[in-house]
Amino acid sequence: MLNKQKKRFLIVMSFLFLSGIHLKTAAVENKAPIVIQEQGSFSVGGVVIHTQGTYKTDIPLKSDGQTLHGDHAYVNYQIPVKANKNPLVFLHGAGQSAQTWETTPDGREGFNNIFLRRGFGIYLVDQPRRGRAGRGTIAGTIPNTTDDQFWFDTFRIGEYPKYFENVQFAKGEKALENFFRQMTPNTAAYDEGVISDAMAALFEKIGNGVLITHSQGGGPGWWTAIKNSNVKGIIAYEPGSGFVFPEGEVPEPLQTISPFGALSANEIPMEDFMKLTKIPIVIYYGDNIADAPSKEWTKDHWRVRYEMAKLWAEAVNRHGGDVKVVHLPEIGIKGNTHFPFSDLNNIEVANEMSRWLKEKRLDK
Amino acid sequence: MLNKQKKRFLIVMSFLFLSGIHLKTAAVENKAPIVIQEQGSFSVGGVVIHTQGTYKTDIPLKSDGQTLHGDHAYVNYQIPVKANKNPLVFLHGAGQSAQTWETTPDGREGFNNIFLRRGFGIYLVDQPRRGRAGRGTIAGTIPNTTDDQFWFDTFRIGEYPKYFENVQFAKGEKALENFFRQMTPNTAAYDEGVISDAMAALFEKIGNGVLITHSQGGGPGWWTAIKNSNVKGIIAYEPGSGFVFPEGEVPEPLQTISPFGALSANEIPMEDFMKLTKIPIVIYYGDNIADAPSKEWTKDHWRVRYEMAKLWAEAVNRHGGDVKVVHLPEIGIKGNTHFPFSDLNNIEVANEMSRWLKEKRLDK
Repeated sequence: MLNKQKKRFLIVMSFLFLSGIHLKTAAVENKAPIVIQEQGSFSVGGVVIHTQGTYKTDIPLKSDGQTLHGDHAYVNYQIPVKANKNPLVFLHGAGQSAQTWETTPDGREGFNNIFLRRGFGIYLVDQPRRGRAGRGTIAGTIPNTTDDQFWFDTFRIGEYPKYFENVQFAKGEKALENFFRQMTPNTAAYDEGVISDAMAALFEKIGNGVLITHSQGGGPGWWTAIKNSNVKGIIAYEPGSGFVFPEGEVPEPLQTISPFGALSANEIPMEDFMKLTKIPIVIYYGDNIADAPSKEWTKDHWRVRYEMAKLWAEAVNRHGGDVKVVHLPEIGIKGNTHFPFSDLNNIEVANEMSRWLKEKRLDK
Repeated sequence: MLNKQKKRFLIVMSFLFLSGIHLKTAAVENKAPIVIQEQGSFSVGGVVIHTQGTYKTDIPLKSDGQTLHGDHAYVNYQIPVKANKNPLVFLHGAGQSAQTWETTPDGREGFNNIFLRRGFGIYLVDQPRRGRAGRGTIAGTIPNTTDDQFWFDTFRIGEYPKYFENVQFAKGEKALENFFRQMTPNTAAYDEGVISDAMAALFEKIGNGVLITHSQGGGPGWWTAIKNSNVKGIIAYEPGSGFVFPEGEVPEPLQTISPFGALSANEIPMEDFMKLTKIPIVIYYGDNIADAPSKEWTKDHWRVRYEMAKLWAEAVNRHGGDVKVVHLPEIGIKGNTHFPFSDLNNIEVANEMSRWLKEKRLDK
């Protein structure tokens, strides 16, 4: 890895020299050009609904005989020159789009650029019924509820308007405004099955790769790996729900004072569950999560999720799997919100992810 | 321009040589890596709505004292090394997102890559209440109407299921499926004022640039230039509505058998209108548009739009402006649908756009 990075560094420097660009050495890590072999976007997966009858151009507003293509995912991709074998596929969380992985709220580079620079092909997904994949096969309604402060708390920036003392989130109105504006609604009901169908179709199209999920994306993430064996590893940032256990091993719902209510897990056939024992999986949680029942709901909300993740890891591992749950503060990475990959210390968080990819030989 | 392109070619070839990549010369135009100096995304513009009261973390689901940030645009950007001075800002049309400008329905490169390769910084917009900018300040409803065939006709691919004989749209189910899946709905009501406010904020942020609009984007495009003088030129592909005339000069609505009804124009203050006389503007229409009232509604629909564009150009030009309306078939570019920039001949369409940019000295 180091040798490969060194080589890439030399190539880029030679290029910079030839093209007459002279940067201060110190700035090179962030400012070196990114050399893209191929980039674009596509839709993948989805279904078609039909209205009976025959379409006639003369009565075009009548639905007879017409179709609607919906429930696909939208995917942006970039492949750097001399890319590693396994690309990274990123699935956002609740209320987010692929923007999650791009620029951070305070304007730094997100995981998209960071891992392009580390030689990975990158696929950024807008899940079905979200963002640019807004066309669903069922109708939707979108409220205009004022709820920014609720999300500030849920996402563990602090207890609005107070920031957590050690929080890795840029202070100031502009970063917070950008963070709020990253949110984008479901255009129709959230559906784990619909999402994982499209994600499985994506892995069918691109072949082997590593899946990175955030929050709500965790649930459809497990299903993606169950549905398609091209998923060679999963990195889940703060999965919030959708943990799947085999028959007879589903834990009782975990009680919490979170306004989201008790956290339940889902029962699935053993045959499906066993597929999750075949690939390495790492789960990361950030800071300011309670380690015992707490009167602060936002810390208690995440306490039960972290607990459920540990129960889940135990279940997968006792069936022969390789799941590790990492509480970032315990390995010295402190102050992270629910969005570790865009927090102020996201390079440190990325380094830990690179370390895991290397350990699992998924960085080639 | 040629010298600059030659220089860039040599730089890229030197780089390829150094990095050990040997491509066949013939493939270089499409396959050469794209070297990106900077890329990312951001939200821009938008407003904040407030619910009266005070937010309390203990009752987070109550709206009291909470805000909603909405009505911003979402923008992806890429700046190539040694970029031209004027970046290009792309605004999609009805039912589309920035995907319009990326990969084509049959998987070729869209205007994003084509103009990056020609040295332009690129800003791709999802307008407020569309795509990744889905959070609006008003509520919305999204139907699941089956209407693909209606759009096939409206966008002049043909009269479903028949393709126009000379049409520059890839045959086969896959390209058509991709085309249908590009559509994404309004998440709240379409609002030209909201969109142009966000677009003006974008030009405030980035400085001078050239605006490229498609279809419904034409209307907010004119308003963007009225609201912000950093717009140094406009290229409008098939504007469909929202033409603005000064007091006393608004033409009568143009009659058509289109199911969209007669086409009206809007009256605006002379002071605003005069701002459109200060910059060069070119408008392109594709093929299969009627030149006299027609019984084929899709050709008649676009006949009145093309007519209105010519009336509008006359109005701007008689006040000292520089607007040209180009019917592509008349300059030998034939068979284009409503999406010339992603049609099979989109390199030819891009070449014409480059020619115009050069003529107006906007390609530096």
